[in-house]
Formats: sequence, C-alpha cells, structure tokens
Amino acid sequence: MTPESAMLRDTLSANLGDAVTYDRDVMSAFHRDQSRLTAAGQPAALVRARSVQDVVTTMTSAYAQGIPVVARGAGTGLAGAANALDGCIVLSLEAMNRILDIDPHSRTATVQSGVLNGALAAAASKVGLWYVPDPGSRAISTIGGNVATNAGGSCCAKYGVTGDHVARIKAVMADGRIIHTGANTRKNVAGLNLTQLLVGSEGTLGVIVEATVRLRVQPNAASTVVASFAEPSEAIAAVLEITRESDPCLVEIMDRTTISAVDELTHMGLDTHAGALLLVQCDGRDAANEAELCAQACNAAGATEVYATDDRVEGDEFMHARRMVLPALERLGGTLLDDLAVPVDKLPAMLTAIERTARSHEVLIGTFGHAADGNLHPTIIFDDNSPDETRRARCAFDDMVLACLDLGGSISGEHGIGVLKLPHLEAMVGTVERDIMARIKKALDPKDILNPGRAI
Amino acid sequence: MTPESAMLRDTLSANLGDAVTYDRDVMSAFHRDQSRLTAAGQPAALVRARSVQDVVTTMTSAYAQGIPVVARGAGTGLAGAANALDGCIVLSLEAMNRILDIDPHSRTATVQSGVLNGALAAAASKVGLWYVPDPGSRAISTIGGNVATNAGGSCCAKYGVTGDHVARIKAVMADGRIIHTGANTRKNVAGLNLTQLLVGSEGTLGVIVEATVRLRVQPNAASTVVASFAEPSEAIAAVLEITRESDPCLVEIMDRTTISAVDELTHMGLDTHAGALLLVQCDGRDAANEAELCAQACNAAGATEVYATDDRVEGDEFMHARRMVLPALERLGGTLLDDLAVPVDKLPAMLTAIERTARSHEVLIGTFGHAADGNLHPTIIFDDNSPDETRRARCAFDDMVLACLDLGGSISGEHGIGVLKLPHLEAMVGTVERDIMARIKKALDPKDILNPGRAI
Repeated sequence: MTPESAMLRDTLSANLGDAVTYDRDVMSAFHRDQSRLTAAGQPAALVRARSVQDVVTTMTSAYAQGIPVVARGAGTGLAGAANALDGCIVLSLEAMNRILDIDPHSRTATVQSGVLNGALAAAASKVGLWYVPDPGSRAISTIGGNVATNAGGSCCAKYGVTGDHVARIKAVMADGRIIHTGANTRKNVAGLNLTQLLVGSEGTLGVIVEATVRLRVQPNAASTVVASFAEPSEAIAAVLEITRESDPCLVEIMDRTTISAVDELTHMGLDTHAGALLLVQCDGRDAANEAELCAQACNAAGATEVYATDDRVEGDEFMHARRMVLPALERLGGTLLDDLAVPVDKLPAMLTAIERTARSHEVLIGTFGHAADGNLHPTIIFDDNSPDETRRARCAFDDMVLACLDLGGSISGEHGIGVLKLPHLEAMVGTVERDIMARIKKALDPKDILNPGRAI
Repeated sequence: MTPESAMLRDTLSANLGDAVTYDRDVMSAFHRDQSRLTAAGQPAALVRARSVQDVVTTMTSAYAQGIPVVARGAGTGLAGAANALDGCIVLSLEAMNRILDIDPHSRTATVQSGVLNGALAAAASKVGLWYVPDPGSRAISTIGGNVATNAGGSCCAKYGVTGDHVARIKAVMADGRIIHTGANTRKNVAGLNLTQLLVGSEGTLGVIVEATVRLRVQPNAASTVVASFAEPSEAIAAVLEITRESDPCLVEIMDRTTISAVDELTHMGLDTHAGALLLVQCDGRDAANEAELCAQACNAAGATEVYATDDRVEGDEFMHARRMVLPALERLGGTLLDDLAVPVDKLPAMLTAIERTARSHEVLIGTFGHAADGNLHPTIIFDDNSPDETRRARCAFDDMVLACLDLGGSISGEHGIGVLKLPHLEAMVGTVERDIMARIKKALDPKDILNPGRAI
C-alpha cells in the first residue's frame, strides 16, 4: 500500500465506518458495468453510501487527496461509464433507495438515486400515477443511473427521454458542496439550466443523490399493431406515415435476424420470413382510432401482414416478444450492443450500412430499436473467446458508428458515451464544442476527480 | 471620444461597413427592451448583423478589446436583459431573418435568430406543420430572443416551453468561435447538453445565431370552455381536477380586475361579477370529449357559469379576449408586469398574497396567467409620473416575489431574470448554485463581455 492510499483509507474508515470496504472480492462485483470490450481498473476503495452525508464525506476526502471517484447505480450501463479506474473510489448509490415523496397535486416524485426505476413506477402506480421513462433495464436500473446517462426507452416516441421528466436534481459536487437544481414549479427560467447540464453527464460534473421527476396520469387504454414487411425500407415508409397521422407511444422495429432469434426463444409464431417487423402502440383516450390509422399506414406501405388489437393483455404479449430480443440474441453468442440514432428518413440507409458492415466483417448482426426516434441497436454476435472474432466485432462496431456519422446521425441515442464511444465523440460534436464541454468540466471539477476521462 | 472607443470604431467600421452605426438617434431605438423600472446605459456602437460572419467579427473585436456586448432580438423582453450597458456594443440579430430550412420528414425548421416567431409559424403552417411555442409577443418577437429567454406562452400547459422545442443551436462564443450544439436526431446523448445550457441564458454565454426547432403536425380540432367562479380558489380547484382528467393545451385564468378591464375594452359581455374566469382549450382528435370533462370539472368546483364550444371561430374570440388583457390593463395606467410561478396547488395562497400586497401598498393589481403551470402575471397599475406611486409599485413587486419564494415558487416562470429580478436570484437558486452558474459563465466568457451583470 502506498502512503497515499493508507491516508485515504484512514480518512474514509474514520468517517464512513461500515459503508467503506477495501475487500477485493467485494469490490470485484462493483468494478464494471454491463458494457463489452471496455477496460476497467482496480479500485482503491468501495463506498456504499447510505446518505447524502456519506457522499459528501467521500467527495470531501477524494477532493482533498485528488483521488478519482466513479459513481454508479446498479451498474447496468452499456458504455463503460461506471467502470472502475485504477486507484479510484467506487461510489455506489444503490443503498440510497428511499422514495422521499410522491406529490399527487404537482404530480412529482422525489427519490434517492438508488431507487430502482421499476420501484418508482410501482409506487407511483399505487396512487394512480405513472413514471413514464422505460429503459429496457427498468426492473434493475436506478433512477440516478437513468438520469446520469439520460436513459431512453420505448415510450420516448411520444413522451421523450429520461431528462424530459426530470424537474430537479440534488447533487454533490467535486468539492463536496451540495447543489439543488431547478424549482418546484412546472415553469422556471431562473438562472442557467443546471438540471439538464447534469442529466446525461455520466458522473463527470457531480454525483446525483436525489432527483425530482414528473409523473403523469396513466392513460386508460392501449392499442397495439404488429405488421410484417418484406423489406425494411417499407417498414420505415410506414413509420414516417404513422408519425404524420398519429402520436404512438411506441414504434419498435426488428430485423430478420432478431425476429428469428425471438421466435426460436418464445415460439410465438412470428413471421420469420419477414424482412422487418413493426410493433406499434397507441395510448390515451383515442388509442383505438389512432391504432387503426397506424394499421392503415402499414397496409399502404406494403405490409405482408397486419394485426391490430385493443386487448391490453394481447398487447403485453407482443411487448414481451420485444423485451425478449436481447436474451434471444444472447443465446446466439457474445453480444456487442450498439446504439445509434439517425434522422428517421435515413433509417433505410442506416439499415443498408449495417448489412454491408455485417458482410464485410463476416459477423452476424441482429438489429432492433426505436424506429420513430431513428434509434437502432445493431447487435453484433461474436465468440468472445476468439480474438479474431472479437477484433472483427470491434471493427464492425466502429464501421457502423462512422456510417451513422456520415448519415448525419448521433453516435449515441440513449446509452451514452462512457469509454466505449469516447474515440468517436469529437467527430460527432466538433472540436470547439468538445473544448466548451471540457471547459465546463474544468470549471466544476478543477481537480478532474469525477469520472475522469469519461463521457467528455 | 476615448482612445479605446476610437480604436473600437476603427475596427468595427473596417470590418462591418454599413452594419455598424454610432448615431445616437439610431441607437436610442435599440437601447432597451420593454421592461419597466430597469436601467439602460449608453451604447458605444450598434451592430445590425446581416450574417454569422458579422457576429463573429463583432465578437472577435469585442473580445480583443474587452468591450461588453448586449445581443438582442426584437427587444420585446420584459426583464431588461437586452438593455444597453454604458460603452457596450448592442448587437441586433433582427436583420438575420431567413428561414434556412423546413424539413417535413424530421419535422424541424432551421432559422436564423432574427426570424419572427409568427413568421416561422406561418411558414410551417404552409407545409401542414406547427411551431408550437406561443409567447404573447409572438407576432413581434424573434426566435433567437425566444430561445435566449426560454419564452413561455399559453400552450406550455400541454406542449412545454420554448426550450422543449429546441433541437440545435448555432452560437458565436465570446472569443468569436462558432459552436453547433445537439444533433439532427430525435435522441442524442453525446456529451454535455449545451443546447439547454444556452436556452434561457439571456445572452450571457454565447450569441445565438441559428436554431433548429421541432415542429408538430397541427391538431385538427380544438374545443373551448369558459367558466366563471365567485372565488379564485374554486377556479384553482377546477384546474387541479381538469389536469387530472384531461390534457388541455391551454388553461388561462383572469382575476376580477382583469375581467373588468378586458370587458370595458372589448364589450364582449364577460361576467364582470365573477371573482375569476377560466379559459380552457383542448386540442387533438379527442378534443370535444376532453373539453366536456373540463366543463364537468368546472361545474363540480362550483362554477357560476360554464360555456363550452367546439367551434373554432368562437374559441378564437375567447382567445382574443385573453390576448387583450395587457392592452386592457395598460389603459388603466402604467403597468409593471410580474411573472411568478408556484406549484399549482399553491395558486390560491399566491392569489391571496397578491391581494394582500395590493392592499398594503395601496396599488391596483390585475392578475392573469397560465393556471395549469402555476404561472401568474400580477400586473401593477401605477402612474409612472408619480415618484410615490412608482416607489409603491416597486415595493409591491418585490413583496410578491418574496411571497412567491415563501410558497416554494420560482421568481420567473417565463420572462427571465435580466436585471429586474437579479436582486432575488440568489434567494431563489441558492448560493452554491449561483456560484456554479458563475463558474460556468467564467469558463465560457473569461473576459465577462457577454451581457455582463445580467441573468446570473
């Protein structure tokens, strides 16, 4: 042990007691997120914060000694933003899992960072309210992590991403000071928008300890349309028409590889000859009529099969198929999940680029995603015990990112930059823009201890 | 003329030609916005930028010589953020009024800063699309100004404020460098959210020269409900119930003073005995049913009169009454327009505080606003030739701000901080929060030349 790390241990142990550990075995469960092909270092300490004060204590100690801090929720991230750095403090917020307040008048909930998305949704539901953001990880991911990565999901088509539902954030800054952003009102233009600056900042500007999020009244109806198409381009034509006529809450697409994988797993009888499948849901008081318009749009775009239902249970079964996509693809091998967004009318070109990539690197790619947002998850299937397959997977991954940039897209629609996408960030945002981001980072974290080298 | 100002003139004239003037008469039309009781200085120069390059030239010169720059759109602001500072360059963006692109597929428009809100709305409408944000000034205010102040409006109840519709911003930074924030996609989490940092920054972080905004498909129906109540608290009870059951696009409230003033001006036959009037509109395919629910909620809350109509022309007539509020109040004397937001269930307490303020300072206050957002505009009527009345108006103004803070509200829902609300900013956002804002300002504008001393 170096004198520095001995000093760190002394300070942390004296002030945090049981909340801190240096046990390598315990720490190993907290040293990386669920991303693939990302490096993770060996932390010096793990703090499992029980309170805002624990976070303040951790940051104050880290600041005094210039030790990097990697904050994490449940570790379900897919870009490596929560991977440990050598010699860092891993700061877990999982134990801060109290729902502090649900206010039915203002329709807001205030929660600690470690509250699971699903737990908040369930608590809101008990008072007739709805926490909308629905990342695929919602059963196991935390609100703090969702906010720190600006997590997306399926409902974004109508309701926007996590950040669109965040009203206030309480965060501990690099030097241990606490800030509380935003206001308790629906409208507020006092000062700079620190809330949306922290949303998606991946632990680089402050440690999010509480969030106040907006809730909605749960819509009382949902209608579902499932349509098969011979060609993906026909499915996208349908998407463009659907979003012109209706306001669906979900427009998901699966390609041939994905449909087959899901059908093999679920035996649902999906049309495995189709080139693409669309799953559309409409909610609200006019759901049935809107869904009818969506079905018409699918037919007009040349769908080979269109099925519509106003039955919620049946709709949930189709949603189950969608949720089985990743487990189904994971049965085929290791998976490297990408996350790219393009303007919706560029989706056919992006899908073509994905096919070309799969051919040129001889890898299997299953693609699915949030079609109405132009947000695709091409998933490379590879044998991660094979260095050659792993190398080709990484090459294919980078090629798709470059193709997305060529189409005027974004290198991440909802998973974040972390370490996985960092090499592509500057090409995406621009050199001056990245410098501006770095200046903000430096202004708020002058010692560069908050998740250094990540996200920006 | 000082040697410094002679040098400034030389630089500006050499590079900007006709776009720059030093004529005091011309400059006097650009030296303040529409706020009351705010100071304005004497500018050294007025640049009427014709292009991004003109803005770059202006900022480069100002940066080299450390001259403050006050950017402005149409000068319709209500907080003094666009008021000139002594010796500053006033940088008008009004002549940059080209709509650069309207993309029907991605449903976005890219415009120069000087494009009028109403001009963009009209152009979008020609291709069947809708630019939603509708500040009261929309016929005469610019998109750049709307974005820089994060302007609100009536439609916010359902559709959010200006910032919620901004996808990208092109801005010239203090040192003359150009940044282009955001992405051309609906979802994007690459790097920090510079877009929402610039929204509402009131010219303190960069000069907004272009914005890409989201458009929607215009809803094909609108239904209107007008309801009178004996007591304002009954009207608020109705608002709470209305927003639980429906998603109205507009929920406006007027108090007794405002109803009478509007009726005297328009002779519309409004119920001048009422203590409060609600104007509610629902849009979209289910508008009529939603409006019916709103009418029921008004009746249940004790409305003395409820009138509902699905006729758009008739609905527009009621909207006309709402738009006549300010002209009607201005007929009664000078007006000092406040802009406060509280949690919706705190509106009765805020209205009581406003009444108490009017009594204690012996001033007339007419109150109207966006009830579903808890955003009120108590408007103090006073004789601005009388120093005593002016003093009492200012005291009443400050008292209402303090009452709003006591109720957990925001000191500005949509007009901004400028200079008018700056004395109250720190009480609102907190000391550490304001320091964080100041650090960001310093990081992006180290010479403090962009609208120094305003907004933050």
